[in-house]
Amino acid sequence: MTVSTARRTSRRSRGIANAVPLVSPVRPGMLGGGYKPLTQPEVERIHALVLQLLEDLGLSQITPSLEARAIEAGCWVDDTGRLRFPRALVEDVIARTRRKFTLHGIDPAHDIEIGGGRVHTGTGGAAPTIMDFHSGRYRESTVSDLYDIARLVDRMDNIHWYHRSVVARDAETILDLDINTTYACLSGTTKSIAISYTDSASVKAVIPMLDAVAGGEGKFRQRPFCTAVCCHVVPPMRFATESCAALEAAVEAGLPILLVAAGQAGATAPAALAGSVAQACAEVLAGLVLCNIIDPMCRGIFATWPFVSDLRTGAMSGGSGEQALLSAACAQMAGFYDLPNSVPAGMTDSKLPDMQAGGEKGYTVALAAHAGASMIHECAGMHGSLMGTCFESYVLDNDLLGAILRTVKGVEVTEDALSFDVIRDVVLGEGHYLGHPQTFSRMKTDYLYPAIADRRSISVWEETGARDAREVARGTVQTVLGEHYPTHIDPAIDRQLRDNFNIILPAARMRPGNGVW
Amino acid sequence: MTVSTARRTSRRSRGIANAVPLVSPVRPGMLGGGYKPLTQPEVERIHALVLQLLEDLGLSQITPSLEARAIEAGCWVDDTGRLRFPRALVEDVIARTRRKFTLHGIDPAHDIEIGGGRVHTGTGGAAPTIMDFHSGRYRESTVSDLYDIARLVDRMDNIHWYHRSVVARDAETILDLDINTTYACLSGTTKSIAISYTDSASVKAVIPMLDAVAGGEGKFRQRPFCTAVCCHVVPPMRFATESCAALEAAVEAGLPILLVAAGQAGATAPAALAGSVAQACAEVLAGLVLCNIIDPMCRGIFATWPFVSDLRTGAMSGGSGEQALLSAACAQMAGFYDLPNSVPAGMTDSKLPDMQAGGEKGYTVALAAHAGASMIHECAGMHGSLMGTCFESYVLDNDLLGAILRTVKGVEVTEDALSFDVIRDVVLGEGHYLGHPQTFSRMKTDYLYPAIADRRSISVWEETGARDAREVARGTVQTVLGEHYPTHIDPAIDRQLRDNFNIILPAARMRPGNGVW
Repeated sequence: MTVSTARRTSRRSRGIANAVPLVSPVRPGMLGGGYKPLTQPEVERIHALVLQLLEDLGLSQITPSLEARAIEAGCWVDDTGRLRFPRALVEDVIARTRRKFTLHGIDPAHDIEIGGGRVHTGTGGAAPTIMDFHSGRYRESTVSDLYDIARLVDRMDNIHWYHRSVVARDAETILDLDINTTYACLSGTTKSIAISYTDSASVKAVIPMLDAVAGGEGKFRQRPFCTAVCCHVVPPMRFATESCAALEAAVEAGLPILLVAAGQAGATAPAALAGSVAQACAEVLAGLVLCNIIDPMCRGIFATWPFVSDLRTGAMSGGSGEQALLSAACAQMAGFYDLPNSVPAGMTDSKLPDMQAGGEKGYTVALAAHAGASMIHECAGMHGSLMGTCFESYVLDNDLLGAILRTVKGVEVTEDALSFDVIRDVVLGEGHYLGHPQTFSRMKTDYLYPAIADRRSISVWEETGARDAREVARGTVQTVLGEHYPTHIDPAIDRQLRDNFNIILPAARMRPGNGVW
Repeated sequence: MTVSTARRTSRRSRGIANAVPLVSPVRPGMLGGGYKPLTQPEVERIHALVLQLLEDLGLSQITPSLEARAIEAGCWVDDTGRLRFPRALVEDVIARTRRKFTLHGIDPAHDIEIGGGRVHTGTGGAAPTIMDFHSGRYRESTVSDLYDIARLVDRMDNIHWYHRSVVARDAETILDLDINTTYACLSGTTKSIAISYTDSASVKAVIPMLDAVAGGEGKFRQRPFCTAVCCHVVPPMRFATESCAALEAAVEAGLPILLVAAGQAGATAPAALAGSVAQACAEVLAGLVLCNIIDPMCRGIFATWPFVSDLRTGAMSGGSGEQALLSAACAQMAGFYDLPNSVPAGMTDSKLPDMQAGGEKGYTVALAAHAGASMIHECAGMHGSLMGTCFESYVLDNDLLGAILRTVKGVEVTEDALSFDVIRDVVLGEGHYLGHPQTFSRMKTDYLYPAIADRRSISVWEETGARDAREVARGTVQTVLGEHYPTHIDPAIDRQLRDNFNIILPAARMRPGNGVW
């Protein structure tokens, strides 16, 4: 075609694009599983080791309460005090655990189905610092940041939940931290939230708050929209006593439980990746057995999160190829078990939303997604190997997640998509596809149009300021945070929460025109 | 473990790291294929359509010389002049084509084996512009740029070849362009090179130059280290007459041929991805039939490069999810055919090495690699949907490619890697893996340590200037280009080339201290 044909046709295309709404090809919960880092015999060898670790080695430091219940279920305690899990019991728990469940949003529009190979992406983490939006320097994160990130996430289509990503360093006690984290998350988004409760007292304290937002006493349990993130183990193969008590309280209260085993290969897990995967699976299954003993209908999420050490320094490396493999292999193991699951990805080592960050996020998330992880945590906003977060990155990552999820959607292979008639018509006719009805029709349904990624020509881009992606994202951050103050919590309920809890976040901070954004 | 234990051990690790050399787990040609975007029945449906397109539709505009040879081999020409390829002939050519061959480097140390699911990564493209290293603004690219990029690529371990990535806009004729491009690439690197010859006269002209560098007349044919990039079709389903003549000359001269079909979905290929994949496969197979007719021992590379249009504007979008799928699906089709192959990936739409560029490069290259592409072209240095290139990006992409290739290497699942004994020893002993012999041993062999990616803590990074990845890469560019002037071409040979060819690149530009770097 000539340049002028292309120009004419492209104007025509734009006209139609404006007239007919585009239908995004991407939605939460598309099927992954096309990438298998392990062969089936390798999966089975790892599984055999997982059972061996649980039966022959077991875990130390179980709480007395859970020990009694575990022994009743068939576990035993060896003479060094380690809780051992018979193979048959573990296999039985895997077989009878819920294969899928609804992870509720505060608004049911954000409900997602976890399990069955469906892929979702969202936040995670516990960064102690945040890159200040105005100064560009890292500082301690606060409860206001938690609330602002929640509001930003609320508007990002490819961030399917908001698991608190920073620690509110301005809370003084553990109880205050947990209460204020819960409040900030609940207030800032209508998506599903998750909080890391390390203490059973915290779990018990926040239930009335969750019930109040859910519409009254006992209502939260009907649609539990807040997940308890539970690091129930201190790897290697040791229970975390306080977290186990929190786990027990959370399962009893009906919260979904993210059962996290976060060993670090080379430090708290083997440097050999296969061993690290097996240890993580064993540790998570130990937690899953406990959850099932407490409540056979529990909503447990198999969250194998083995991390990687840069063995030169011992520091974590979230952006490494080894990390991508650990996460993808764990997702495949979870698929083998057919359990709702989570792996971490997108945890760049870079401190900035730069090329390093993009690259590390891109390949690690893509591999986790195609390996079929139900939930990919940490894949929005995180920097510095989970030690920091950055507002712009939620917007940038949302854009990238969309593109990656488009690849999870895959290639439609149908008679219509194969297009023999279309190809014949074009080849024997006009010689190009620009004006063909299939082109217009597929344009509306098969293609994802990003919000941030710049696809313009070099000259147009230069003429309009030659901005990098981060600068574009800054504009979105300012727009969203300046105008989007969710109002799903009734003011009367909010007053009640403020009366009953020590809420740090000032009410004035939760209204437009507060002078910050 | 306590902080002080970690510090002590990390110092100890560093000590050992310094004492024993690290062995990179990454090498060219690791096996891909773990990612299958298509099911086997889908692959077979696409293949059936490919055969249908070649037999029932065929290609127009075959050259008289090749038409005669094709008819002799069993093709026929329909009454509209289209060359038709009987299914049996196509299947026969697929069956008897070389399944693998050595793609020679100028230095045999850079030979790579193409085919059999082994994955390699390198440059490609024909960008007309380059971001000037000093001004940061895009300008027309020159033969000096070609030479400088060659020198940079020569030092980048994960860029396995140098296919010319920019157009020397300072060459005045096609012949001058092809001669000077060949000369600049040959002089700047000892890796395998590739040039796009659109004219048979160019092919014939450069053979004496290739022979001279190879060591004398007829020597190049024994170790052909220069590939002809041949866009033998103008999609949809039409031969490119001049390129077909160049193809004939190149095959006869023993050059490996990159058989490129570069349709653009929505413009010169169907907007439906499956149709676009099928059309590309058909177009490349048509070229492969021709190559095999010319020389059954030809070194043909199945280079399905379907691109994507942003259908709002008609412009190409190299960084899109749809592009990632097209490339991965084509790699899978080539794996089904078991042919040495190439797909494009890493073609960001961004004009800068920023977060967008990183993200788009990361996921598109990862998916192409895991789909098992023999050669991933365009995955170093390209920007602006192939319209520009940027020095820093070769360095940054090399780093990213290393991490992605680490994931292709995969997870070792052996008795030793499964680590039961190690886990038991640690769990019942010290409680952490930092001091375990396996940790030290695996550190040397299983982990890749990047050159550019910053893994330091936020505070250390801030204290040392808070540089982004691009700034770090700039330092590498300056170091390499200031000092690395390859000398593999004997000065006497070089003088001979300068006597016999119209060489634009000044000899003084090819020595240190030329004032540019």
